[in-house]
Amino acid sequence: MEYINKYVEENKDRFLEELFGLIRIPSISSIAAHKPDMYKAAGYWKKTLLEAGADKAEVFETAGNPVTYGEKIIDPALPTVLVYGHMDVMPVDPIDLWDTPPFEPQVRDGKIYARGADDDKGQGMMHAKAFELMVKTNTLPCNVKFMIEGEEEIGSPNLGKWCEQNKEMLKADIILVSDTSMLGADIPSITTGLRGLSYWQVEVTGPNRDLHSGIFGGAVANPINVLCSMIDQMVDADGKVTIPGFYDTVQEVSAEERALLGKAPFNEEKYKKALGVDELKGEKGFSTSEHTGIRPSFDVCGIWGGYTGEGAKTVLPSKAFAKISSRLVPDQDHEKIAVLFKDHFESIAPKSVKVEVTYLHGGPAYVCPIDIPAYQAAEKAYTDTFGNRPVPVRSGGSIPIISTFEKVLGIKTVLMGFGLESDAIHSPNENYPLEQFYKGIKTIPLFYKYFAEMSK
Amino acid sequence: MEYINKYVEENKDRFLEELFGLIRIPSISSIAAHKPDMYKAAGYWKKTLLEAGADKAEVFETAGNPVTYGEKIIDPALPTVLVYGHMDVMPVDPIDLWDTPPFEPQVRDGKIYARGADDDKGQGMMHAKAFELMVKTNTLPCNVKFMIEGEEEIGSPNLGKWCEQNKEMLKADIILVSDTSMLGADIPSITTGLRGLSYWQVEVTGPNRDLHSGIFGGAVANPINVLCSMIDQMVDADGKVTIPGFYDTVQEVSAEERALLGKAPFNEEKYKKALGVDELKGEKGFSTSEHTGIRPSFDVCGIWGGYTGEGAKTVLPSKAFAKISSRLVPDQDHEKIAVLFKDHFESIAPKSVKVEVTYLHGGPAYVCPIDIPAYQAAEKAYTDTFGNRPVPVRSGGSIPIISTFEKVLGIKTVLMGFGLESDAIHSPNENYPLEQFYKGIKTIPLFYKYFAEMSK
Repeated sequence: MEYINKYVEENKDRFLEELFGLIRIPSISSIAAHKPDMYKAAGYWKKTLLEAGADKAEVFETAGNPVTYGEKIIDPALPTVLVYGHMDVMPVDPIDLWDTPPFEPQVRDGKIYARGADDDKGQGMMHAKAFELMVKTNTLPCNVKFMIEGEEEIGSPNLGKWCEQNKEMLKADIILVSDTSMLGADIPSITTGLRGLSYWQVEVTGPNRDLHSGIFGGAVANPINVLCSMIDQMVDADGKVTIPGFYDTVQEVSAEERALLGKAPFNEEKYKKALGVDELKGEKGFSTSEHTGIRPSFDVCGIWGGYTGEGAKTVLPSKAFAKISSRLVPDQDHEKIAVLFKDHFESIAPKSVKVEVTYLHGGPAYVCPIDIPAYQAAEKAYTDTFGNRPVPVRSGGSIPIISTFEKVLGIKTVLMGFGLESDAIHSPNENYPLEQFYKGIKTIPLFYKYFAEMSK
Repeated sequence: MEYINKYVEENKDRFLEELFGLIRIPSISSIAAHKPDMYKAAGYWKKTLLEAGADKAEVFETAGNPVTYGEKIIDPALPTVLVYGHMDVMPVDPIDLWDTPPFEPQVRDGKIYARGADDDKGQGMMHAKAFELMVKTNTLPCNVKFMIEGEEEIGSPNLGKWCEQNKEMLKADIILVSDTSMLGADIPSITTGLRGLSYWQVEVTGPNRDLHSGIFGGAVANPINVLCSMIDQMVDADGKVTIPGFYDTVQEVSAEERALLGKAPFNEEKYKKALGVDELKGEKGFSTSEHTGIRPSFDVCGIWGGYTGEGAKTVLPSKAFAKISSRLVPDQDHEKIAVLFKDHFESIAPKSVKVEVTYLHGGPAYVCPIDIPAYQAAEKAYTDTFGNRPVPVRSGGSIPIISTFEKVLGIKTVLMGFGLESDAIHSPNENYPLEQFYKGIKTIPLFYKYFAEMSK
């Protein structure tokens, strides 16, 4: 497609500069002090959509962070694509592990380094620029709507309600999202499954104040020791989560489908080497890609308590804390799992401590059928750009709002991700290869073209 | 003793003001940034000793923090008392739990509130003021030497060597220390045993960077989960430490001595209530005072890893850390225990992680015989001031340097502590009752008197 390559080639530096402008806004949704940045990012998105050719664009208030909505309706008889993305990013700590400041984007070795370079500012901006390309080259074959939210990284607590309130405005034939990864730069893939999530904070309280570990040590339960023991009890030696009822609604994937999923290329030695580990660890009876694709997980995301400063302080602390998350698979209900965990965790607490469990957020898993026109249009678009037919994969990540879209709006989602595993999203030195950014911008107009043709 | 009461009464406000001056210096030895404060505190002690009547006083350099030494030799034929104390204090975090700033001493309800109010600025200052009293009232019956160090709270890493280098100067008949507690304000007691200590930092590394817990969760070992499991394995269901060889050199206390120690008044309900716990937890087969007095312990003093900020960040972290300590009893060798722990902890690490154990510091336990003149002089002094004969007790705390004194200088130590359990040493809102402070100043001259008499 000559016109696509030409437009991207002529505008590539500007595209990058526009992405950098968005990245420079430190829109961390989980830290309240960054609230003003969420509004800056929402305004930036509004401007971007209007300049790209939207008929209108608007920043909507919610009970939490704002949503930017924009649209271009060229003909009500044509199919409508609703693009979803998020303007918020993850926190940046541990900040000292970043080679360059997270909100000062830099290109090194053909990659953009910055928080949000991939997730989801880089991938989101591809849609704005592909939209611009279609408008400016008079090739837009569908109506387009954009919905860019500011709370994805904290579980989209307000977007479901906002969708309900704006159902009519959001009417569309398909939702298009780029917020996932491909198997490799030369192995295109489309994510057809997403895990759900439950996320808790737990607080274990022992004595009513920090104690001298000499005077009391050995006689009084230490809340850190107790928390460690309780966490250790949550997963058994076979890697199974021990919460009663946890697996009751897990969809057992058929041997046939497991064989199909097993065809996605995977090199365990390379995988271990890339992570720097000598051995992997997962639920007995399942492969590594099954561990992340079709099985739930149980991870402590953070832990703290007692003295964590320099040197040695002998203390028997009063409290210990952990942030704990579980990735869920169809048909686990995150709210039911939230309660099962709380009940179980409290039940295993010894009498020597008090335990408080707070459910922070969660969402259900999602599965996308591969026989719908939108999936097939995406498949063709990738094949054109990458030279290979994309593989359908079940991803371990969660975008809880995707299930909500189906429930509230009745619309399926196609996950056209262009990220790579090496992008280090959520980690220090997050990055996004320039090639993926530009290939994404080139692939998206092809999706619109094929989707419009197939929808005729 | 009228002259004692009179002198204290006439000078009590000045005594307090002089203590406050010392407290206001934030001499936290475990934090390198406070190094200049250590020199301020050392200079303050020098001035205090000279003003109290020392012939000379000097600040000595060591490889670490300084030591203040002062002396008054009235007659080489008389017995010599060497007073030991420390000018350094513990860190103050969690700072938000303090009702008033830790280095701005305040008197409320008859108690001095400040870091170091008891440990060991308050208790140390009592000796300076008791010394002053004896000098000014011409009642000093012994030669006196003071050795005030700046590294007690970090395990006195340089004092042993300094003692070796100054053996001649430090020659004495007994070492006198106030850095322990009494059973209660109306139950005088003298600590005859101190536990030893081993203190480690451990680092567990999983993947070489923080990972997205969705994309990798379930397939890659989480270092926090692993650390929790490893810590949980260190103590069994009976409260016994599982390190092979850990108990091999533990002195089993005879049934007779256990019965004697059991006579110290102890009210479990009151103890639990004061700590705010519903149940105690300790090694099976031993009582609460035995847990802290004659048995070793295993406590995590601090733990951290992953995301510990506000809200929810889903991450599978690269690293998890803990600070771990064990209180030791006679005849456990802290250096041998250090190695046993390291070997065992490393041996239980799964191949999916890498473990690094660093030994931070430690020291052996100490036992003071109750049939030496110095102990008996202390017993008489307390009886005079408090009206009851003091009970000998084994304390759970550690003053590792005490064993070193015996080894290097060949001198026994008597632990004349005046602290109370409610003083919250090492904790927020550390305090020291004015009454204990003044009673200590009155008791110490009586010790000198009886000790001089008994040594004739």
